Amino acid sequence: MGNDLSFRSVYPILATPFHDDESLDLESLDRMVRFMARAGVGGVTVLGVLGEANRMLDREREAVVRTAVNAGGGTLPVIVGTSHSGTRAALGLSQMAQELGAAAVMVTPHAEAVPNDARVFEYYRVIADGITIPIVAQDHPASTGVHMGVPLLLRLLQEIPRIAALKEEALPTAPKIRALVAGMQRKIPILTGLGALYAQFDLEAGSDGFNTGFAFPEVLMTMVKAAGAGDWTRVRALYARFLPLIVFEQQPGMGIRKEILRLRGLIAGARVRHPGADIQPDTARQLRELLDQVLPGVDLTQPLTL
Amino acid sequence: MGNDLSFRSVYPILATPFHDDESLDLESLDRMVRFMARAGVGGVTVLGVLGEANRMLDREREAVVRTAVNAGGGTLPVIVGTSHSGTRAALGLSQMAQELGAAAVMVTPHAEAVPNDARVFEYYRVIADGITIPIVAQDHPASTGVHMGVPLLLRLLQEIPRIAALKEEALPTAPKIRALVAGMQRKIPILTGLGALYAQFDLEAGSDGFNTGFAFPEVLMTMVKAAGAGDWTRVRALYARFLPLIVFEQQPGMGIRKEILRLRGLIAGARVRHPGADIQPDTARQLRELLDQVLPGVDLTQPLTL
Amino acid sequence: MGNDLSFRSVYPILATPFHDDESLDLESLDRMVRFMARAGVGGVTVLGVLGEANRMLDREREAVVRTAVNAGGGTLPVIVGTSHSGTRAALGLSQMAQELGAAAVMVTPHAEAVPNDARVFEYYRVIADGITIPIVAQDHPASTGVHMGVPLLLRLLQEIPRIAALKEEALPTAPKIRALVAGMQRKIPILTGLGALYAQFDLEAGSDGFNTGFAFPEVLMTMVKAAGAGDWTRVRALYARFLPLIVFEQQPGMGIRKEILRLRGLIAGARVRHPGADIQPDTARQLRELLDQVLPGVDLTQPLTL
Amino acid sequence: MGNDLSFRSVYPILATPFHDDESLDLESLDRMVRFMARAGVGGVTVLGVLGEANRMLDREREAVVRTAVNAGGGTLPVIVGTSHSGTRAALGLSQMAQELGAAAVMVTPHAEAVPNDARVFEYYRVIADGITIPIVAQDHPASTGVHMGVPLLLRLLQEIPRIAALKEEALPTAPKIRALVAGMQRKIPILTGLGALYAQFDLEAGSDGFNTGFAFPEVLMTMVKAAGAGDWTRVRALYARFLPLIVFEQQPGMGIRKEILRLRGLIAGARVRHPGADIQPDTARQLRELLDQVLPGVDLTQPLTL
Repeated sequence: MGNDLSFRSVYPILATPFHDDESLDLESLDRMVRFMARAGVGGVTVLGVLGEANRMLDREREAVVRTAVNAGGGTLPVIVGTSHSGTRAALGLSQMAQELGAAAVMVTPHAEAVPNDARVFEYYRVIADGITIPIVAQDHPASTGVHMGVPLLLRLLQEIPRIAALKEEALPTAPKIRALVAGMQRKIPILTGLGALYAQFDLEAGSDGFNTGFAFPEVLMTMVKAAGAGDWTRVRALYARFLPLIVFEQQPGMGIRKEILRLRGLIAGARVRHPGADIQPDTARQLRELLDQVLPGVDLTQPLTL
Repeated sequence: MGNDLSFRSVYPILATPFHDDESLDLESLDRMVRFMARAGVGGVTVLGVLGEANRMLDREREAVVRTAVNAGGGTLPVIVGTSHSGTRAALGLSQMAQELGAAAVMVTPHAEAVPNDARVFEYYRVIADGITIPIVAQDHPASTGVHMGVPLLLRLLQEIPRIAALKEEALPTAPKIRALVAGMQRKIPILTGLGALYAQFDLEAGSDGFNTGFAFPEVLMTMVKAAGAGDWTRVRALYARFLPLIVFEQQPGMGIRKEILRLRGLIAGARVRHPGADIQPDTARQLRELLDQVLPGVDLTQPLTL
Repeated sequence: MGNDLSFRSVYPILATPFHDDESLDLESLDRMVRFMARAGVGGVTVLGVLGEANRMLDREREAVVRTAVNAGGGTLPVIVGTSHSGTRAALGLSQMAQELGAAAVMVTPHAEAVPNDARVFEYYRVIADGITIPIVAQDHPASTGVHMGVPLLLRLLQEIPRIAALKEEALPTAPKIRALVAGMQRKIPILTGLGALYAQFDLEAGSDGFNTGFAFPEVLMTMVKAAGAGDWTRVRALYARFLPLIVFEQQPGMGIRKEILRLRGLIAGARVRHPGADIQPDTARQLRELLDQVLPGVDLTQPLTL
Repeated sequence: MGNDLSFRSVYPILATPFHDDESLDLESLDRMVRFMARAGVGGVTVLGVLGEANRMLDREREAVVRTAVNAGGGTLPVIVGTSHSGTRAALGLSQMAQELGAAAVMVTPHAEAVPNDARVFEYYRVIADGITIPIVAQDHPASTGVHMGVPLLLRLLQEIPRIAALKEEALPTAPKIRALVAGMQRKIPILTGLGALYAQFDLEAGSDGFNTGFAFPEVLMTMVKAAGAGDWTRVRALYARFLPLIVFEQQPGMGIRKEILRLRGLIAGARVRHPGADIQPDTARQLRELLDQVLPGVDLTQPLTL
């Protein structure tokens, strides 16, 4: 789709590949980004929670951004997660991402001892004022502990034009998406995530695309296109077909997802950084059976034809 | 199945029906229990988290147990949730349940400021020593905040014979089920819940049945039977067919589940007790469309024929 | 002070005494209430968190209220904690308290999965509409997980006249007390708690009295009177003198407080209900040394003369 | 005391000074370290929670360590907080600290979704295996959410010799200190923190010193010496005298502590990094009154003579 960051497509959250000794495997990262470009995604996101960003040093984050941007070849937008528990540090990471060629940053607030809408707002404003690329504001209370109500989100969208898309992952997602769509004065795209667990329902409620780690973004792309064309029968058929795999993959931890990426030939190994856990052999076997069930006889190493 | 509490079947967690003014609707409860008996479940569970037990006074709990036992007619086992933040009070609720004719109690520990395996063990032992009916030990950290490791669970099963079944709902469920099955010296059944979200994977890992609120227990019963017969093709087909509905229903809150029960003719109204929230009109519409998608042309008020 | 519930005095949160088998020791409760009346407190509060209310059955709560009201002899106001995770149940407990002669109820909201100011407001309104005695609204996020901002608290006070006092225990307390005092249109008393840990600073910020479990309410009464008379030198001297004891007593758990009450001759034993923990022998010894340090040669069984 | 890191002294946790624009004020940091050396502390700790380390980029952390080590002049030991949610990253920060001249690192585990003693152990072992300087293992569940039981802590001390001291901050501290002292086979020092709130009780229970942010470490040094000499009358007198200030200072947030450091002339400004909050004017006034009350007529800019 070129470097046209519409936020109305699929933007996979990339896992960060590691060697067996947990060092960065940038070659695998390069391969994964190129695969995604070939598959036609709207862009990729690195250094999200699923990218194990919270287990990295800053210089490792820089290497990841540099590699992804380079692999994108100037045509694939790279969105970079730059959340930080300090506002100034989040700004610093965002500026780093921008300097390295990121197309946008994805930012979530961090929980304070006392919830405080005013500080969440200031957090976004400080970051927005210090960069020139767009912001994806992420609403994911399960990982952040921050509950941003619809009025706060609408105020953020209204008063901070640099926020170009909203990633909505607060349960239940559909009613919140509907409330946001109804309330927006400046209309911006809403992406959804959560491993695509609620993909059909999110699209029905008004989601414009996906920004999530499901290891078959091709499926989500086809769903987004079908929804755009009003072909809900196709949306629902795809959702029903892949839902067992979606459910299995979105279980806590990165091990399953990385194993799928490994089986797809995108990363050399499925190592998860400590204290995260690698996939267990029994789970890996159960996963392979499930892949056989959902995608019998399919060559996983190629973009799926749906 | 008669009052044969094997814990190798399906035991629906019943919602508690309320009138519009939030008072108990015991007539609907009676109807729901009779429907479940007719559908052939192994028993029913009342006063679980999904039964909004935490929003009731003790005398209301008693009325619920009395009504369910009576509706069960002496042949349908009634399991009663009796967890309490005080050990002696949990025992008191368990004794109340036993006196009113409960077939078993379902008990989960409550979180302490400092996690303490010894106190969890004592909690179960005190309850076990004060009653003569079986205990279902529930492991559901998402609602309790208590993380019971496999060693603690195995010790509970080994040293407290009154624990007759384990309800396993700690994510990810399959590996924990496998570890428990492998570690048990005294073999007891494992039931799973979580709205049946992981039903196929739980059965594959060794789950013996379900103890959950999914509003179509007929589906789960057929899955359990198929698994028992080794017909995994059928298990997987049923799971795939109903998974969109399972995913939709297990979203947080009781509103969706109660609306399905209302549509099935089992409860007169879908009122949720404050501070819980009733289903929103848009969500109710989305639910009806989903039911049409998954169960086109089916009379929901009758037990499903699968 | 008679049954004049000004909320400008000291209202001890009473521990609930238990026999060694954890059954209610109502005789000790009676003795404790009579002692407090003799000591001149403004009233007593039963069934707070410190009263282990969350470890009791409803019928035990009733026995506690009945005993306290009776011991108060119609002249000592009894405030009853009636918080509940269900709004209708909190109302039911409040009505029970009113019928048994309570002078007021103390109510705190319960945490919902998604924080929601509107529901907190409704919770208080439902309770207020169903009773005729005053409400003390308690703001204690450490135990409830509910963060009520100053605007919500001011709205509660403004729109629900039955709220007659605010118990402020959100850290740091002094700035919040100042903000509330500054913002109130209808001026109502503010009480503080937290074991009196911040007693001097709370009074300086505008607290009108104490509603807490510190086992020497005589000290707090003298401080409140001194503050009322503008004698801040005396306030500070008392605070400094008793602060080591205050700090020691406010440590988590009920064991230390109950042991002091036992040493004062008010309760027969210091038993804490499981899963709470009794005081350890070493801690009991440390406590006795501390009492000797702070109150050398004093007969603890009599109201202190300060 | 020279670069003799006995862990039987006072090791202030230093605030990180910022300019008004929130950039690092290394000049103030240098001044503060030199003051502490002059005051005779056993060492200083930088990049603790109180040092707002969680609001800094890695390169800022490096600048802080470099400045502190340089200001210490090779004689004052600098302990560096290097905790990280990723094990490998914690090791990386620890190696950075070691390379820059740190005398020790202070490390606390991070909470995982599922508590797991084995992973906590591995976390420490990985760090210990990758550095050659001592580790202070910090037990502070209030900030980390990790509850390390006495058996786990004893196993850590026994099997990882590089752990040279334990910083114990789990409430209540005294019983846990006693249990640790009783259980240790290899005897290592225990330091306590929590702003010195429980200083007397910790020392009585066996604490060897303090590792905390109280802005008057001179007081704690005198207490440690008195305890070492068996002069408990002096310990208690000092504790009672300074306790109002200790209580006031340990309230949540860094604003009060930084204001005291500013009043002592150690840092140029009391700015706290966003989203933390600066001290409010009313609180600053209350603090100054309290300082006049506890230290009337004393020149705060000089080490206290006690």
